[in-house]
Amino acid sequence: MTAYDELMQFQRETEALGQIAGRLGWDQETMMPQGATPQRAEEHGAMANILHARRIDPRVGDWLQTAEALDDVAAANLRHIKRDFERTAKVPATLAAELAKTTSLAHRVWAQARADEDVAAFLPILQKVVALRREEASAVAGNADPYDALLDDYESGATGASLGAMFAALRPRLVALRSAILDQPAPQTLSGDFDEVAQLALSEKLALAFGYDVGHGRIDKAVHPFSSGSGLDVRITTRTSLTDPFNCFYSTIHEVGHAAYEQGIDAAHLLTPLGRGVSMGVHESQSRIYENQLGRSRAFTGWLYGQMRDQFGDFGIADEDAFYATVNRVSDGFIRTEADEVQYNLHVLLRFDLERALMSGDLAVNDLEAAWNDRFAADFGYAIDKPSNGVLQDVHWSEGLFGYFPTYTLGNVYAGCLHVALRDAVPGLDDDLAQGDTSKATGWLRENLQQFGGLRTPVETIAHATVAVPDEGPLLDYLEDKFRGIYGL
Amino acid sequence: MTAYDELMQFQRETEALGQIAGRLGWDQETMMPQGATPQRAEEHGAMANILHARRIDPRVGDWLQTAEALDDVAAANLRHIKRDFERTAKVPATLAAELAKTTSLAHRVWAQARADEDVAAFLPILQKVVALRREEASAVAGNADPYDALLDDYESGATGASLGAMFAALRPRLVALRSAILDQPAPQTLSGDFDEVAQLALSEKLALAFGYDVGHGRIDKAVHPFSSGSGLDVRITTRTSLTDPFNCFYSTIHEVGHAAYEQGIDAAHLLTPLGRGVSMGVHESQSRIYENQLGRSRAFTGWLYGQMRDQFGDFGIADEDAFYATVNRVSDGFIRTEADEVQYNLHVLLRFDLERALMSGDLAVNDLEAAWNDRFAADFGYAIDKPSNGVLQDVHWSEGLFGYFPTYTLGNVYAGCLHVALRDAVPGLDDDLAQGDTSKATGWLRENLQQFGGLRTPVETIAHATVAVPDEGPLLDYLEDKFRGIYGL
Repeated sequence: MTAYDELMQFQRETEALGQIAGRLGWDQETMMPQGATPQRAEEHGAMANILHARRIDPRVGDWLQTAEALDDVAAANLRHIKRDFERTAKVPATLAAELAKTTSLAHRVWAQARADEDVAAFLPILQKVVALRREEASAVAGNADPYDALLDDYESGATGASLGAMFAALRPRLVALRSAILDQPAPQTLSGDFDEVAQLALSEKLALAFGYDVGHGRIDKAVHPFSSGSGLDVRITTRTSLTDPFNCFYSTIHEVGHAAYEQGIDAAHLLTPLGRGVSMGVHESQSRIYENQLGRSRAFTGWLYGQMRDQFGDFGIADEDAFYATVNRVSDGFIRTEADEVQYNLHVLLRFDLERALMSGDLAVNDLEAAWNDRFAADFGYAIDKPSNGVLQDVHWSEGLFGYFPTYTLGNVYAGCLHVALRDAVPGLDDDLAQGDTSKATGWLRENLQQFGGLRTPVETIAHATVAVPDEGPLLDYLEDKFRGIYGL
Repeated sequence: MTAYDELMQFQRETEALGQIAGRLGWDQETMMPQGATPQRAEEHGAMANILHARRIDPRVGDWLQTAEALDDVAAANLRHIKRDFERTAKVPATLAAELAKTTSLAHRVWAQARADEDVAAFLPILQKVVALRREEASAVAGNADPYDALLDDYESGATGASLGAMFAALRPRLVALRSAILDQPAPQTLSGDFDEVAQLALSEKLALAFGYDVGHGRIDKAVHPFSSGSGLDVRITTRTSLTDPFNCFYSTIHEVGHAAYEQGIDAAHLLTPLGRGVSMGVHESQSRIYENQLGRSRAFTGWLYGQMRDQFGDFGIADEDAFYATVNRVSDGFIRTEADEVQYNLHVLLRFDLERALMSGDLAVNDLEAAWNDRFAADFGYAIDKPSNGVLQDVHWSEGLFGYFPTYTLGNVYAGCLHVALRDAVPGLDDDLAQGDTSKATGWLRENLQQFGGLRTPVETIAHATVAVPDEGPLLDYLEDKFRGIYGL
């Protein structure tokens, strides 16, 4: 065996172990009996130790020294493995252990602080998390910007500066669009209760309509919907709300977008670094284009209206046009995860600017709540009423996930670019969507993006499908066009 | 940290990884999408490699050299770890790998041969499995009997000679009892269909009645019911048959017996070698005493009769006495897993004698089918009609599991001993069982056996609870007494 073959055999086993660790997480959110929590924590810890030991295994360094790439696939595999190995090697073991311990504790402190609406109770441990992540980022970044080192974990190649410029261009047009929309009369809301068994049945129909392969996956309920796994075992979850079936349906479509990406990767990449979605941003581009540009389109919602009428009878919406407006209703709200297409990115931009400032030291942890509240009032026009609706609403920072938030909006930006290219490539798409047939759209995404997995960098992945360097223009044009139409602006 | 502490920290992580591997198996039988099979095989392989590497880790040998036991618990932990380490070290890595590869292939060949009723197709690979297991057993046993080395994996301390003597005493009395029973008129059978949702509801009620803790477990359906996991996460499965609800109910009670043992172990032993049931035989003693001595008793079936009448209305059985006979009906049949209390052990004794002869070389693989058929005819009085009802019926040998079968009957023997001690300790037990209350019985088992886990050897574990060295007498007395009563012999 060559050094490359030996390395890839080792890596394949690591990938398989990574899949097991992921499925353990799936089990915890869907199947695990509640009393198993303390034991599960030890199981997670044992698995994390195994994976960490493999990531710093000196044999990987030796193999990387001599392994030769005979083709593009091999070159991409070596690039991924080298990047992960060097990144892990730069962080001292003591720091990694301290981070794991601190974020585990911080997560519990955050959950309690949020329940108690007590920001002060969370700040000391957040201070420690920020300090440790800055230390880690500095170790990885060397002379470069530490925040970029964190970003790189989720979106290889992205920088705070490039995202900052992109987001600065998004913000004023989104603020203006939001403000104009909310000056208009609001669309109707759904009325009545929606049987949960029927919701789950239609949810499964939607998953299948968007090409989810249940022969290599399954759908369960979870408190917070997620997608999990790669290759031949990609599972999704959804949830139901008695009065809001859109929560179920669009959670399902969103997770199917993530799952379809994993299921769509070329089988040749199974259990290799190329066999997983290439970045959080590109992943989110798939979930978002499924959910929004396709799932919330006029054409597809026309079909969904008929499906819902069949399942639920009359729910107070007279026709397809009114239903389209209801699906895309924009209203005030504090919570990012409940936000519509227009406002969602404003929530993300706020977090991006604040976490960058925290990491650079321009913002002190003690000033974080005030900064959050000021920025929210500036963009949304009203005040945060309580910390659980503001600075304590998201779990991410308690877990040390700095650099993760911007990938949500980057995914929307990518989805905007992909949507233009898709519409160019498939001219009569709306006729299909109006029949509930997404196959040409999902087929185009599979063919032009999903199948390649981690073969290219994130930006190259989008550029290969769109034949252009991605920017925020298409997303803004799409949002302005769509919502001006709905709201008669 | 002392050497003992370091060893136990390492072992604790190994135990946690073992739990993960077990849960992966649970997932495969209950939740896994069918298309995931090839990927799952790699995941299992990766996990097996991790666990094997830990079992032969030279640090374990070093720690064992210097670790000191300061109390009984530490001594028992060291005994378990030392035994496993030495056992693994004695088997060359190449042989272990060859065995894993061959049994994996043999399992597939066996499944196909059984479907095709083609013994000849299975014999060449079985020959190879037998040869490899003999080689392994010889490596472990040194100058001792190789079969004892295999037995030791499932029932530490048991020997072929001691079991042979015990089983030789069982066989004639069981053959005679069976023959006398089958000369009598058979009890009634159930009539009608039994709603599967109602079966599962009553099955869960039975699980709870026998003390299963669903806060630390869950109940799912599986093709072949099993119990899985230790400590705080012990899951069981059951199955339903439209016309045979006993299949569901007694599968559930059986698996609850296994699960209750794991759930009943002292929490101080969590994720240590003492935190699992001590042997297959002792494990089976718990599942069998729950299922048979308690679950199929006159008192408990009286309660079950009322429960079934409430759930299913009239099913053709007039009263509790007739129902008791129906539950304990003895009839002709080829299949071990479907056998009643009387005949089950005859199926096991047959396999034990044949596999011992295979391992000693007294029986050639090519003569196995004839030997099976002869022995079956001798004990059961009629001929095997096809290989899937005979030598191809069980999966065990294809997987190299020689030495496993006898633990089933050993479990029944232990259950017989425990039942006598239990009845002595809890004089009015039948009054409780007649109310569906098993708590005094399960409480006694937890107090006197389950809580200790792997603290003592298997025989000591039974002897501690019964204050006697276990033998086959109590089981035979119980069976003869019970079935003479039912059949008026």
